[in-house]
Amino acid sequence: MTSISNVSCFNEARRVAIFGGTHGNEMSGITLVNLWIKNGKEIQRKGVETKPFITNPRAVEKCTRYVDTDLNRAFTTENLSAPSGDDLPYEVKRAQQINEIFGPKGSPDAYDVIFDLHNTTSNMGCTLILESSKDHFNLQMMHYIKPALDMVYLEGLSLDLVCLEGLSLDLVGPQPQGVLRSNIFESMRVVLKHALDFIELFNEGLEFPPCSVDVFRVWDKMDYPRDTNGNIIAMVHPNLQDCDWEPLNPGDPMFQMFDGTTVRYEGVGTVYPTFINEAAYYEKQQAFVTTRRETLVAGAIKKA
Amino acid sequence: MTSISNVSCFNEARRVAIFGGTHGNEMSGITLVNLWIKNGKEIQRKGVETKPFITNPRAVEKCTRYVDTDLNRAFTTENLSAPSGDDLPYEVKRAQQINEIFGPKGSPDAYDVIFDLHNTTSNMGCTLILESSKDHFNLQMMHYIKPALDMVYLEGLSLDLVCLEGLSLDLVGPQPQGVLRSNIFESMRVVLKHALDFIELFNEGLEFPPCSVDVFRVWDKMDYPRDTNGNIIAMVHPNLQDCDWEPLNPGDPMFQMFDGTTVRYEGVGTVYPTFINEAAYYEKQQAFVTTRRETLVAGAIKKA
Repeated sequence: MTSISNVSCFNEARRVAIFGGTHGNEMSGITLVNLWIKNGKEIQRKGVETKPFITNPRAVEKCTRYVDTDLNRAFTTENLSAPSGDDLPYEVKRAQQINEIFGPKGSPDAYDVIFDLHNTTSNMGCTLILESSKDHFNLQMMHYIKPALDMVYLEGLSLDLVCLEGLSLDLVGPQPQGVLRSNIFESMRVVLKHALDFIELFNEGLEFPPCSVDVFRVWDKMDYPRDTNGNIIAMVHPNLQDCDWEPLNPGDPMFQMFDGTTVRYEGVGTVYPTFINEAAYYEKQQAFVTTRRETLVAGAIKKA
Repeated sequence: MTSISNVSCFNEARRVAIFGGTHGNEMSGITLVNLWIKNGKEIQRKGVETKPFITNPRAVEKCTRYVDTDLNRAFTTENLSAPSGDDLPYEVKRAQQINEIFGPKGSPDAYDVIFDLHNTTSNMGCTLILESSKDHFNLQMMHYIKPALDMVYLEGLSLDLVCLEGLSLDLVGPQPQGVLRSNIFESMRVVLKHALDFIELFNEGLEFPPCSVDVFRVWDKMDYPRDTNGNIIAMVHPNLQDCDWEPLNPGDPMFQMFDGTTVRYEGVGTVYPTFINEAAYYEKQQAFVTTRRETLVAGAIKKA
């Protein structure tokens, strides 16, 4: 990226990857990617090479989140440089292969943009996850998609994939693991359509003027109440369940203990919970994530 | 059971088991049973020995439906009489152990009543599953619970557990696998409370007069549309999704193909679909089950 007269210049996005099945039981991305592998017409754009790809085929076959370890956390420098061998966890081997095809991470050979398609059991709607508030390309893309679909932008989660810039983690819910719901499937399809349209326009030389984007920034992570042995002793309170992105104020109900008593939020000021009661986060000791709202400004961008 | 002057007489239900974790990722039953193993006060009733029991602990530990094979289909005579050995699938060994503790199946030593607690990703609400329309004990129990909780009764699925009579498969949804939702948890708790109250009253000698119960009888099983390689090429139609127990008439939308076209129901007459888009039934090639409504008459019952 270079910046001339307040317009950030990015290289053309010639190579775009669409990943499904990074978690093998999140069916929307798996189904869309398999559909596009058979017939890619829907994702073709002028001057763009678009590659749909199933990232964790063994987990997809078993319809499980992962086989040995979470692929979404496997793209660390340590893993990618580990000597290859049969004793490596399956997802670490897979991360090395993906890095070879779509990376290497941090090199000019890496793909320009990667869309990584995910589902959640939380009532989060359509969410684009952004690693850095300085990512003008993704912010501009978000701003472009917004009129077509009511989306939410989450910032401050560490993403760890192989592309140079323009990684976009697209998350849609609520959808149970192992289930394909038509509404969730179609929402994800719409996000991808408009994201690819944006890339085509960008490649054609369109300059995108400065804009502002409302985002939620990750603030804190909340675990379930537990007993001294670490066992969960409460559930997400019915007043909070399914209320992702809605305000949670000090004193509001947060958990319902199994004995019926209520645990209230005791933080300072209003937060906006999300990832509420996500199935995969029980093992990560996380009942929900709190966020704060803020407005980011994306500078103008154009093709270098 | 004996029948005197149109009153069916059953033995006292002295021993009652409550099973959780028959499927290791259905969290309501697992959580309730673990809670009651620690403190059984809530399930104690006069003259009844109530035993809460985790049936598939290894699947619960892995938060997966099963390890080797579906425990809920493992209680066949062939499995129960197979020579024990390390080469048996885990759930077959487990079925043999459960049969030893709570059976043997068909013998007078078997437990009198077993509640087997399940969840579904389908929007089925509270459902009690009944094997036989001649099961007056369970029909009377259903009739007793009904005023406390809006429940549905499904008939005609083959159940295969170890108790003599009074097996009740209690199913509540929608709840994703691996998730505990407070509303689903509390509904299941209410079903069990009233079911145990019913047993206590029965044991005390109360006679339950004849009554009628509206049920849904299993009619047919519908698979997803598939291509010649067996791959699913459609989703449950948005008009049908979450509409368990609602009428589906000839000509109504049933599936939405990935290309957007609609597949309509072409059966004869109105059916009432259920188990719509249940996660665990993709591998059983089942998109939903159709049922027909009917009214069953339960004869009077009392203690022998």
